[in-house]
Amino acid sequence: MYEELKQRVYDANMRLPQEGLVTLTWGNVSEVDRENGVFAIKPSGVPYSELKPEQIVILDLDGNVVEGDLNPSSDTPTHAYLYRTWPEVGGIVHTHSKWAVVYAQSGLPLVAAGTTHADTFYGDVPVAEKLTEEQVNGEYELETGKSIVKAFEDKGIKPLDVPAVLTNDHGPFSWGKNAKSAVDNAIVLEVVADMNYHTQLLLGRDADISIAQYLLDKHYLRKHGPNAYYGQKG
Amino acid sequence: MYEELKQRVYDANMRLPQEGLVTLTWGNVSEVDRENGVFAIKPSGVPYSELKPEQIVILDLDGNVVEGDLNPSSDTPTHAYLYRTWPEVGGIVHTHSKWAVVYAQSGLPLVAAGTTHADTFYGDVPVAEKLTEEQVNGEYELETGKSIVKAFEDKGIKPLDVPAVLTNDHGPFSWGKNAKSAVDNAIVLEVVADMNYHTQLLLGRDADISIAQYLLDKHYLRKHGPNAYYGQKG
Amino acid sequence: MYEELKQRVYDANMRLPQEGLVTLTWGNVSEVDRENGVFAIKPSGVPYSELKPEQIVILDLDGNVVEGDLNPSSDTPTHAYLYRTWPEVGGIVHTHSKWAVVYAQSGLPLVAAGTTHADTFYGDVPVAEKLTEEQVNGEYELETGKSIVKAFEDKGIKPLDVPAVLTNDHGPFSWGKNAKSAVDNAIVLEVVADMNYHTQLLLGRDADISIAQYLLDKHYLRKHGPNAYYGQKG
Amino acid sequence: MYEELKQRVYDANMRLPQEGLVTLTWGNVSEVDRENGVFAIKPSGVPYSELKPEQIVILDLDGNVVEGDLNPSSDTPTHAYLYRTWPEVGGIVHTHSKWAVVYAQSGLPLVAAGTTHADTFYGDVPVAEKLTEEQVNGEYELETGKSIVKAFEDKGIKPLDVPAVLTNDHGPFSWGKNAKSAVDNAIVLEVVADMNYHTQLLLGRDADISIAQYLLDKHYLRKHGPNAYYGQKG
Repeated sequence: MYEELKQRVYDANMRLPQEGLVTLTWGNVSEVDRENGVFAIKPSGVPYSELKPEQIVILDLDGNVVEGDLNPSSDTPTHAYLYRTWPEVGGIVHTHSKWAVVYAQSGLPLVAAGTTHADTFYGDVPVAEKLTEEQVNGEYELETGKSIVKAFEDKGIKPLDVPAVLTNDHGPFSWGKNAKSAVDNAIVLEVVADMNYHTQLLLGRDADISIAQYLLDKHYLRKHGPNAYYGQKG
Repeated sequence: MYEELKQRVYDANMRLPQEGLVTLTWGNVSEVDRENGVFAIKPSGVPYSELKPEQIVILDLDGNVVEGDLNPSSDTPTHAYLYRTWPEVGGIVHTHSKWAVVYAQSGLPLVAAGTTHADTFYGDVPVAEKLTEEQVNGEYELETGKSIVKAFEDKGIKPLDVPAVLTNDHGPFSWGKNAKSAVDNAIVLEVVADMNYHTQLLLGRDADISIAQYLLDKHYLRKHGPNAYYGQKG
Repeated sequence: MYEELKQRVYDANMRLPQEGLVTLTWGNVSEVDRENGVFAIKPSGVPYSELKPEQIVILDLDGNVVEGDLNPSSDTPTHAYLYRTWPEVGGIVHTHSKWAVVYAQSGLPLVAAGTTHADTFYGDVPVAEKLTEEQVNGEYELETGKSIVKAFEDKGIKPLDVPAVLTNDHGPFSWGKNAKSAVDNAIVLEVVADMNYHTQLLLGRDADISIAQYLLDKHYLRKHGPNAYYGQKG
Repeated sequence: MYEELKQRVYDANMRLPQEGLVTLTWGNVSEVDRENGVFAIKPSGVPYSELKPEQIVILDLDGNVVEGDLNPSSDTPTHAYLYRTWPEVGGIVHTHSKWAVVYAQSGLPLVAAGTTHADTFYGDVPVAEKLTEEQVNGEYELETGKSIVKAFEDKGIKPLDVPAVLTNDHGPFSWGKNAKSAVDNAIVLEVVADMNYHTQLLLGRDADISIAQYLLDKHYLRKHGPNAYYGQKG
């Protein structure tokens, strides 16, 4: 069962090393099957060069293993919480890609600094609040998920409008309508973080590098708005 | 019809991912056929790995599709305006290559800082003025073209002397006598922006990093002047 | 004799160019066979493209060649000293990987700045003290080993808790329970140094970029502690 | 005639794109045959992907073509002057490799900042003086050669002790006992410039990043001194 789902999640995971987003066994991609109330995720600590589609683990949305012999990614409770909370999200990616981690470690949001950002993210990519000692020593990975959702609720951002977050001191999560789209967004996040970083350093640490709201609107909406005219019609 | 033109434009487009100048579906290359009053351009939003020569779209210089089933690049009106205004330009490239974008987002021109720059660009690569809200909400891609031409007219630069520009908050366009030459110039622009950036940070944000005019003249003209002696005689 | 050991050490050495950690003939990996009181190491100055498993040199822990026609790595006395002093160490790597060298040349430790660091290193990666003129002109490579051990003793760090060091003005050494694990740690060290560097520059040279102790504990121990839950059970 | 020389020079030139040291047609390698009083060099402006061994041009030391149908590199008079002046030099390389160019454009020498530098260069890599307008408009490429030799004479450096230079506003030249060794030195120069740059920015623009003289001596001499013990005996 779930062979196609496993294959899609396997394919999406394998793009992470191909795109240079992960080192060693780091990172994981999942995709949810809303109809059957399950999601598929990479097993924990398996090198990408040895990963096989049949090793992908299937879990219900409470995080119970439904199918699979291996332990799921240690970040599974974060994925599960996001799927439970955000019904519009279909796929999730976690990496330690360099430039996004630099922003996460710095505790700084990724400012929307140009149209490259605006083509994918409708505003700044937020950084979640630091977790307290109690949260870290409790259900850490669940609390990570809660800190992500809180960041979006506090700022009134819809998850698919800005499909990524920086977890404080840790690294990025991104998402999309499915696993493939979530990986695309992880790629763009890394490119945009790279450009953002160097723009900030060129202009100075205190410079405001934000794009004008009307140009942000234009670029985001020509690709993702109701009258989008980028790309080909379905 | 236009099979050779489509093939050349396809080949030029495929160099963008090979040279690391684009991510996902970003970027586009076009070439004009002045005799027939048409130009060929990449279709919008098609991944490079799936692109085929027969998908290249043919348009007249007013931007009307002459041949092709797919939507042309959303940047098509920018290309068309440049071809209408600059008869000496034969090919145009748009990318979101990192270092050029960093300068575009910073709103800073690319200063001619050394002979690597001078071998291709006869002076600073200008940054176009920011577009107003009215321009962005009007015919945005056409206005982008106009802002490019204005930058060159204001400074009295001939387009083939400095075959590239940075559109403010957005990214680079480059051009040349044909599509291949425009891609070559996009490659050099990215290399030069990278060198320029690190030279500026090494010397400090306020340092003047300009090359002496006589050395700029020497390097540009030994390759592109009437007595050029670089390369082989045709 | 020692064919399997030589093959393992050959394989581990060959990962250095594959992972972009070395230039030309630089770098070396060794692994110890505690039962037979010997270790295997790359021969000195041999290009990786010409290296063969049978060229790996076998020495006793005092640094006397037991098997092999070629000179062992010039860093052999450093490896031998570490094996003699630290019985828990099974493999050692030396590289001149860029970001680690930048920290070594700067004489600065690699601060534990985020969870990427904490997943592998249980605290800051120390920088060894500069060697004196007398030490450099004496048994230089042995003194390098002593400076490494001193850095760990001074700070009360167990070698497998923080399996790497920066030798002052020189570059990194890393280690692990075997050669493969030592190379994994060399890879992580380079990634973490890269992230650390850019975090520091983004926040400013004087900013404290340390991760909270409780988050360092959590990430290190979920992978390496007695109740570790990352990865698959043996 | 000169087939082996041409093949060696061809092979050395082809390493430049493989090692990422050149863009498009940039860069050139030459090697001298002292017995016959000639040197071989890349033809001007030929793409590396189309270069063939038989296209390598043979010239006498005054720069007259002895064999070959194509124009030699435009930098040929620089190579010829160095061969005439420095009898110990057997091969020369010119590139526009990024980090070396950043230092050349900045007009700053490459400070010997660590043992990676000391293993190849016995002290700082000097930057040549800026050429005057008269020199640039005269025999520019010859004057470039003279400015290189002057930099070494002024500082009393022997060319094989520090086998590279930064020509002001332009880029690096490196050399060695033959073309292969000159390319090795071009590779190391680029790596060392990269490390130097980031060390300087981490410690601050005004920090002194020089290695101690006794450590410079130790590393250079253990590889290149009369009692060298790095590598294998002849």
